[in-house]
Amino acid sequence: MVTIKDSVHDHIEVRGVAAALLETDSVQRLRHITQLGTVHLVYPSANHTRFEHSLGVYHLANTALDHLGIDGVQAERLRAAALLHDVGHGPYSHNVEGVIHRHTGKYHDDVHELLATGEVGNVLRESDLDPERIADLVAGNGQYGQLVSGELDVDRMDYLVRDAHHTGVPYGTIDFERLIRELTFVDGELVLAEGNVQTAESLLLARALMNPTVYQHHVARIAKAMLRRGAERLLNRAETTPAELRRMDDHDLLVALRTTPATAELARRLRTRDLYKRAVWAELDAVPEDVVDAGYDTVSELESAVADRAGLSSEAVVVDVPDRPSMTESTSRVMVSGEMRRLGKQSPLVSALRTAGKQQWRLGVYAPSHDTDRVGRAAVDALGLNLDGALVSDVRPGVTATLDEFTGP
Amino acid sequence: MVTIKDSVHDHIEVRGVAAALLETDSVQRLRHITQLGTVHLVYPSANHTRFEHSLGVYHLANTALDHLGIDGVQAERLRAAALLHDVGHGPYSHNVEGVIHRHTGKYHDDVHELLATGEVGNVLRESDLDPERIADLVAGNGQYGQLVSGELDVDRMDYLVRDAHHTGVPYGTIDFERLIRELTFVDGELVLAEGNVQTAESLLLARALMNPTVYQHHVARIAKAMLRRGAERLLNRAETTPAELRRMDDHDLLVALRTTPATAELARRLRTRDLYKRAVWAELDAVPEDVVDAGYDTVSELESAVADRAGLSSEAVVVDVPDRPSMTESTSRVMVSGEMRRLGKQSPLVSALRTAGKQQWRLGVYAPSHDTDRVGRAAVDALGLNLDGALVSDVRPGVTATLDEFTGP
Amino acid sequence: MVTIKDSVHDHIEVRGVAAALLETDSVQRLRHITQLGTVHLVYPSANHTRFEHSLGVYHLANTALDHLGIDGVQAERLRAAALLHDVGHGPYSHNVEGVIHRHTGKYHDDVHELLATGEVGNVLRESDLDPERIADLVAGNGQYGQLVSGELDVDRMDYLVRDAHHTGVPYGTIDFERLIRELTFVDGELVLAEGNVQTAESLLLARALMNPTVYQHHVARIAKAMLRRGAERLLNRAETTPAELRRMDDHDLLVALRTTPATAELARRLRTRDLYKRAVWAELDAVPEDVVDAGYDTVSELESAVADRAGLSSEAVVVDVPDRPSMTESTSRVMVSGEMRRLGKQSPLVSALRTAGKQQWRLGVYAPSHDTDRVGRAAVDALGLNLDGALVSDVRPGVTATLDEFTGP
Amino acid sequence: MVTIKDSVHDHIEVRGVAAALLETDSVQRLRHITQLGTVHLVYPSANHTRFEHSLGVYHLANTALDHLGIDGVQAERLRAAALLHDVGHGPYSHNVEGVIHRHTGKYHDDVHELLATGEVGNVLRESDLDPERIADLVAGNGQYGQLVSGELDVDRMDYLVRDAHHTGVPYGTIDFERLIRELTFVDGELVLAEGNVQTAESLLLARALMNPTVYQHHVARIAKAMLRRGAERLLNRAETTPAELRRMDDHDLLVALRTTPATAELARRLRTRDLYKRAVWAELDAVPEDVVDAGYDTVSELESAVADRAGLSSEAVVVDVPDRPSMTESTSRVMVSGEMRRLGKQSPLVSALRTAGKQQWRLGVYAPSHDTDRVGRAAVDALGLNLDGALVSDVRPGVTATLDEFTGP
Repeated sequence: MVTIKDSVHDHIEVRGVAAALLETDSVQRLRHITQLGTVHLVYPSANHTRFEHSLGVYHLANTALDHLGIDGVQAERLRAAALLHDVGHGPYSHNVEGVIHRHTGKYHDDVHELLATGEVGNVLRESDLDPERIADLVAGNGQYGQLVSGELDVDRMDYLVRDAHHTGVPYGTIDFERLIRELTFVDGELVLAEGNVQTAESLLLARALMNPTVYQHHVARIAKAMLRRGAERLLNRAETTPAELRRMDDHDLLVALRTTPATAELARRLRTRDLYKRAVWAELDAVPEDVVDAGYDTVSELESAVADRAGLSSEAVVVDVPDRPSMTESTSRVMVSGEMRRLGKQSPLVSALRTAGKQQWRLGVYAPSHDTDRVGRAAVDALGLNLDGALVSDVRPGVTATLDEFTGP
Repeated sequence: MVTIKDSVHDHIEVRGVAAALLETDSVQRLRHITQLGTVHLVYPSANHTRFEHSLGVYHLANTALDHLGIDGVQAERLRAAALLHDVGHGPYSHNVEGVIHRHTGKYHDDVHELLATGEVGNVLRESDLDPERIADLVAGNGQYGQLVSGELDVDRMDYLVRDAHHTGVPYGTIDFERLIRELTFVDGELVLAEGNVQTAESLLLARALMNPTVYQHHVARIAKAMLRRGAERLLNRAETTPAELRRMDDHDLLVALRTTPATAELARRLRTRDLYKRAVWAELDAVPEDVVDAGYDTVSELESAVADRAGLSSEAVVVDVPDRPSMTESTSRVMVSGEMRRLGKQSPLVSALRTAGKQQWRLGVYAPSHDTDRVGRAAVDALGLNLDGALVSDVRPGVTATLDEFTGP
Repeated sequence: MVTIKDSVHDHIEVRGVAAALLETDSVQRLRHITQLGTVHLVYPSANHTRFEHSLGVYHLANTALDHLGIDGVQAERLRAAALLHDVGHGPYSHNVEGVIHRHTGKYHDDVHELLATGEVGNVLRESDLDPERIADLVAGNGQYGQLVSGELDVDRMDYLVRDAHHTGVPYGTIDFERLIRELTFVDGELVLAEGNVQTAESLLLARALMNPTVYQHHVARIAKAMLRRGAERLLNRAETTPAELRRMDDHDLLVALRTTPATAELARRLRTRDLYKRAVWAELDAVPEDVVDAGYDTVSELESAVADRAGLSSEAVVVDVPDRPSMTESTSRVMVSGEMRRLGKQSPLVSALRTAGKQQWRLGVYAPSHDTDRVGRAAVDALGLNLDGALVSDVRPGVTATLDEFTGP
Repeated sequence: MVTIKDSVHDHIEVRGVAAALLETDSVQRLRHITQLGTVHLVYPSANHTRFEHSLGVYHLANTALDHLGIDGVQAERLRAAALLHDVGHGPYSHNVEGVIHRHTGKYHDDVHELLATGEVGNVLRESDLDPERIADLVAGNGQYGQLVSGELDVDRMDYLVRDAHHTGVPYGTIDFERLIRELTFVDGELVLAEGNVQTAESLLLARALMNPTVYQHHVARIAKAMLRRGAERLLNRAETTPAELRRMDDHDLLVALRTTPATAELARRLRTRDLYKRAVWAELDAVPEDVVDAGYDTVSELESAVADRAGLSSEAVVVDVPDRPSMTESTSRVMVSGEMRRLGKQSPLVSALRTAGKQQWRLGVYAPSHDTDRVGRAAVDALGLNLDGALVSDVRPGVTATLDEFTGP
């Protein structure tokens, strides 16, 4: 057993297969992947890593297993899955993930392969654990998979509290001890016990407040989109392969960008926080459906189209289309008067938060500050944005954001 | 100047008239009024007082004055109002306040009198401050009164954070520094500056989560209702006068209850936490309008009616009708795209929280545990509760609550 | 089982005999005894009670039992002792304790009696626990008694962290989780495992910093000495008996002082924080040995002597002689290179802290502010204080303290 | 003005020249230098950077300037110095600094040059600030330089609290607000005002507890020594120049080590935490004076000597000789009874802590785990270690440390 001091959960005891997994390259690599990627450009204290988060998730999974009375091989599997749940992560963000998927195939297969091979695979097999089953748990499959990846999973509980601790934003401060104490299985479903509608709502609300304030802060989004752009260029020019890219850590990617002439300027901008600015920041209603649903392929085409219209090289334009707002917590289950109910059915907050999520959604088009005016106007035309009324909000197209770029909200 | 160490705001500097006010009996008395009254029976760490809260409100007012650039006599007035905003408080809770009002007149007049007389009046006049104007600020009147008592007041900011710190419930953790930094006056109205819809929502959400979890916890409500019952009896039997009652501190009231034969048993129960239990816990839809709107007068009549029907003495029944759910924050103002908007207009959360507030509303009827069955059935008849469907929730009438009475939610 | 939310340890689970003991009058009474007594006059947030502290000690004891692998009846006994360790406490402070002892006998007998009788005795016997053995554990007897009362006991761990949390003074922030994890029994002695000299020192240092800053702050000492004075007068005039006094809670004592003419003025002063001021504040070297060793009896005589010399009634003089500085942690045991060593032998800090403790020791003589000059001069004569050099420090005799009386250090 | 959210000080307002300096490459580079270097291998949450620390130091300097009433150009200079105080830092640790010094000249000259040239020099000159004078303040020269670098500087106050927050070790929790409030200038010296001997001691004690627990943890030391070894090899083989090395950030150095064949194995070990183990861990008394005083030059020779004796290549041996224990805080000044005194004269703790510092000093000799036995014995001979008695402590030479390598102390 090893005991590790954590700034969020204090002492974390790591035992059994988890202690052996801790020493593998795949887990040690997570020390070099930050949890929040470019968010540290907004909140300078947010330098925590997926390594400490993985330990936290392991710790909460352990607490939940104790509480639920799960032990034996089932518990070992879950502990392994909790510690390993992020080893498939590429450098930086889900944004870069998207680029990789576009060039390869499915995320899930990759995790299966990762867990089955190399040091991790060896450790699992030596402990008589089937990598395939661990990968299923990581994917949230089966009754117990819900603990690792589901509406009430310990991953979310850890990251909300940890991100709040490290950014200094107090909104993620959920009562995770209570959440875990109230978990129970009913008919194979993970639910919160009677009397916990508010407990479930608190999880939802924490994410609803952290989202615009931290996770979707426009400065972090701009930097993330620039990174995505750079990664794409590396792949397009065969400077790296999708497989290599996926195994990079954060700084490896920065180095690759810096040492490749086609991306060196992007790298300089990211390093010195000399970021692009918003040329367009448009609400959901102002954006045509096909633009909202543009996948990673189409985004490049949109960027080219805007750049052409603006008479600029395509390097000068970054288009950033977030996913449609979702709210997985709305399907979390809670017991009310003896029956299992979906939170979305029970709580009037769920649909309100869904509406709020839509209100907060923004299409971003970014450009070097001297080009935002030109790019803004070009984007309105090229993307068919609807500018009737105040539909392009916060910043007028073509105008650099007036909000202080350093300030967290 | 005196510097005081506070567990929430660290060092608080008290200057000018506030330093002199600090030494008056009226302010020192607040050391003996707990902030959350009977809530400590649920959350044992919640023993903080209105004295430290008043210092906190003074401190935040000071910060806001600095930020808003208000100084001179206007600032001195506001600082005095912030420190004095709670001196009119009777012992324990708003519940006891209600009893006093019923026997006297208006709360507001009383504050005017309190501030104009005694040591406080002397200190204010010596500092050339008109007690009348301070009382107006305490009442939230005028442009600057909004800082002390209004939708965005510093009172609320302090108590949410302080109550979270002392109960251990993490939901009140608002970003009060940000809230204060974003305050501004537009056309004489206190508003949050552009880009702060979420900031405003966070205040609303914090209260929405603290409410059922802390402020309206059923155990705290039962104890509060028992206290209210005792205070009423003291007044009815002329054991004390409304004026005397208002000037008591928490323990004075307990002593009065203990030493008066008619209330000695109530006092014993409160002291040893041998509380009444819920006989009825009914949702808003199950309760006739006239019962919901029963004022303090009518409650006694309802209690007699239930007791009669149950064939018990009226001591055995406590009826607890909370105010209809309100949400003052919904009228807080925030700048959006250059215009001032009510949060209720801007945020889809407001109406959802209003609905949630209604869902959480409960009529309580309490009785000694061996009588809850009888009293529950009698109350359903006497109050005309509608028991179709699952309208009486959480506990069946006449059945002791199955929830753990010690547990915080 | 009941689960209680605590602001220091988060969720505390109370099981078995402890859950039953929690409902007894003797334990519920601790809700009304503050942990730090008059310290709240310096640190207004310090209103925490012996009830929540007792829960905390119970919780840490439980954690230690798990860690040490102690279970069965031995564990039940220790859990009971942890929860009950403070039920023998009189109102307020050890100072009042002293008064009671002087009028009765030994503290220890009293605890034995308290645990054997009434509700507590019944609960213990129903759980097949011998009250006598519990009282022994509370007294720190036997191998396991060291966990409850000894150099490395969980009492101290809880109060340091809790007092830091509630005063806002950061010095008590020990790593109690580590301390408990490193506890082990060697040859029947409770020791810290190898590699923990610093861990042991940290406990010592935390107390060494909290002592002058919090526990021995002069304002808290003045108020405490005034309370002791009042309690003495109540007993001398047979207004109350030692047995009654011991069962009072904090406010009961204030009420008794207020309603007894001979102590009414003291009560008013305490309530409105209109405290006596320091007339003398003398270092250890300036005070004759027999004064330093004055017990509770002699103090009254000293007060009369000073008052006589000053030509004042004895009410105008309070003499406050603290115990000689001790440092029980210096005997705590820690494993070094495979052998058990006393911390005092191993750590050069121990003797330094002992010296520091002596340097900080102060004799206090207090009087109403208009009499401090007179009383100061009289005390120097009557007590034979040595005033050569700067031996009377911080305040000159006869001069009101210039330090801000509100300020925590 | 920009406002930045910090996890330690909440909102930090950056104004004037500091806001302009913030955007320079030299300051942005600090985002990529961790505050505690290899300590994150022991405390995984310790990933905070010199960027956020520099902001914290700026913030505390600002607070101190307000408190001391310093404004105008003097204040602007100090604010610039506070923000810039770490821009001269090379990658990772002081250990690597040593290597650079050995290959170049003085640290101080370099800072002068750094501040005078490039973007930083331009910004300073545009603000009419003389880079030379800022460099002097950074070096702690002059009356005001003491605020930035001295016994009571704000640098130390920030790092103690920040390192505690991020490691989770509670010992660094000093009361920095109080420290700053009590600062004053007397005869051109920065001192703590009357009544602050304990305040001064608390700073000393915090560092004394953080030192062995965090800063000198053996695992962090091993990794640091391995890094130093790698940097040396890069310079020796002219793979990089001292000037280039100094401008690297943490990851740049790891990349340089990884891509240079002679250091690739070291890089792999550091990345996967496959560290050398202790072959010797010797107390001060066991080590000859000339070894204790070995500078960076001599260490290489010692390593060769040990390797020769062991019959191994010099890569297999890392010798790690820490500086002799110092305690700069012992010269901090505090007012006692109206005169300025050195803390070392006033407080008995100072010499005790100096003794403790000596007791904790350890010479380390590290080797791959399969060679520790051989290297340990060779080192005892080659370095002339005195092994009479138990002078080589904690681990016997030639035996891998039995302490859990993952565990924080």
